[in-house]
Amino acid sequence: MAKHIGTQSILLTRQVSIIEATSTVGKKEGEGPLRQYFDVVLDDNKDNGSNWEQAESNIVRDNLNLLIKKSGLKKEKINYVITGDLLNQCCGSTYGIRDLNIPFFGVFGACSTFGEALSLGSIIIDGGGGENIIAAASSHFCSAERQFRFPLELGTQRPPTSTYTVTGDGGVMLSANGFGPYVTAVTTGKIVDFGITDANNMGAAMAPAAADVMLHHFKDFNRDPNYYDLIATGDLGYVGKELVIKIMAENGYYLGSNYTDCGIEIFYNKKQDTHSGGSGCACSAVVFSGMLYKKLKTKEINRLLLIPTGALMNTTVIQQGESIAGIAHAVAVENTF
Amino acid sequence: MAKHIGTQSILLTRQVSIIEATSTVGKKEGEGPLRQYFDVVLDDNKDNGSNWEQAESNIVRDNLNLLIKKSGLKKEKINYVITGDLLNQCCGSTYGIRDLNIPFFGVFGACSTFGEALSLGSIIIDGGGGENIIAAASSHFCSAERQFRFPLELGTQRPPTSTYTVTGDGGVMLSANGFGPYVTAVTTGKIVDFGITDANNMGAAMAPAAADVMLHHFKDFNRDPNYYDLIATGDLGYVGKELVIKIMAENGYYLGSNYTDCGIEIFYNKKQDTHSGGSGCACSAVVFSGMLYKKLKTKEINRLLLIPTGALMNTTVIQQGESIAGIAHAVAVENTF
Repeated sequence: MAKHIGTQSILLTRQVSIIEATSTVGKKEGEGPLRQYFDVVLDDNKDNGSNWEQAESNIVRDNLNLLIKKSGLKKEKINYVITGDLLNQCCGSTYGIRDLNIPFFGVFGACSTFGEALSLGSIIIDGGGGENIIAAASSHFCSAERQFRFPLELGTQRPPTSTYTVTGDGGVMLSANGFGPYVTAVTTGKIVDFGITDANNMGAAMAPAAADVMLHHFKDFNRDPNYYDLIATGDLGYVGKELVIKIMAENGYYLGSNYTDCGIEIFYNKKQDTHSGGSGCACSAVVFSGMLYKKLKTKEINRLLLIPTGALMNTTVIQQGESIAGIAHAVAVENTF
Repeated sequence: MAKHIGTQSILLTRQVSIIEATSTVGKKEGEGPLRQYFDVVLDDNKDNGSNWEQAESNIVRDNLNLLIKKSGLKKEKINYVITGDLLNQCCGSTYGIRDLNIPFFGVFGACSTFGEALSLGSIIIDGGGGENIIAAASSHFCSAERQFRFPLELGTQRPPTSTYTVTGDGGVMLSANGFGPYVTAVTTGKIVDFGITDANNMGAAMAPAAADVMLHHFKDFNRDPNYYDLIATGDLGYVGKELVIKIMAENGYYLGSNYTDCGIEIFYNKKQDTHSGGSGCACSAVVFSGMLYKKLKTKEINRLLLIPTGALMNTTVIQQGESIAGIAHAVAVENTF
């Protein structure tokens, strides 16, 4: 039974193992610095779909089937699949898992979705509500651009603050039975809105939420940033990362070289022309399921604080003049329980 | 710690009380047969918003603040708010709970969202992951019509199979401390897709999913429909309800007068010209938080099986020729634990 800590955290008291992780990414992500860590790199981002939404669903379907296969679990042994994406009504997930035949909880936390799925899955297993749970998230550059900004065919120029939505799906198999790495603690985020109205500056919209949940995490557990070998926010990019460092310093927490952002890790920024960095639900999902999980397994890092970050943006509401609300969820993953 | 039962159900072993429930509805819902059961009936569905999306958020905000007030709990004692709606990126919820300052899990299950929130909240409390959790869902006729079908200004004629999206928000406070009614069992649904492609025939798209989860619930617990004083699906309307009765009969389960659908209960169908009945996330949420919760409290009914039903419809994907995937979640609410 979870132990409530401080204002908004819980310490897990049952072993919640991440027994397997799989990642599938698009062509561009495969040309980036993390290529070696991904299970599948697509040659063609259409992935045999006849449109971008179908492509995203195909990526979800194939990546989660690979996850199930690699985990060695029979489908009947998997209690829930918890997943979501950026598309309206989370249709990337819906059609992706349609044939899985596993009880489904759909979640939406914009680009924090992987953190939300990981948190919920871990809390449920910790409390005995499940033995094996899939937590995952996906996004696709082409489906996201046309839904949130402009169809690619327009060739719209992207400002320097903009980020590049990662194409891919990252998923993990959480289990009550297995070895490390373990999910050890969860700090669930609240909505934080600092009044940003620019749909091309997501980093700035999300940074206050990332800092807020990080501050609560450190305070709740009486930890400082050095407790972790690595702290990784989701998809703040260069602009948002600097803001987080600033806000944290103003609050007396100095983030050093052990702090990075998944959106900065995933691309060769200048060479690949990705402006402020990578973004999208898949950004933290594939960087975790690809690189970070493997670095935990090889003990290159032993204590990770993953903080997927989301800008809860809706085009209609933004056009009506509303600001972009941010949210972030912190999940500690450690090799010792 | 939850007890896993059969293929996809869990029996809760800790008392999960529904200590309070509140419902706010629009003008038309207030003119229906359930008027007396709702906490708030709006005079004007704009609810002081300058557009329909803002109106929905205002309804969410006010209804959940009323819930917190009526529950007598301080906000700091509430671990999570779990809620969602039909709008793209669940923006009705996001802006509605923005100022609540409570850790937030956003969920999307289309019109099954209330069932999903209720299931997740109950599983978390049962496992010790929280003491007090808000589970809720909202929808708004005007924001939903323009997003999913046509702007109201067009005056489009609605076919007889169409349902009428309920305007409102229904929310409950789940707690580890309190008296009945209790959430006693949860059967989580899988995606079921029978190939319906008509966005005006949601009942038919959802009925197979409702029947599927109901069948699994009865089999898992070795119960028959007579175990319950009332079985209430979410928003199948007249068309979908008949289909459920048929599918269940084909499988040897005969639903009698103890079976109803929240979409049929909420309107005077002929007088109010609501065609196949009510629908939307708010349909099961307000019928439960309004009428059914009160009937449980007064012991008019003691055993309820609530099955919110969702059509995971996305306009882009439907226009691309995809079918509408359905999902439903069954939650047993009983006066004795």
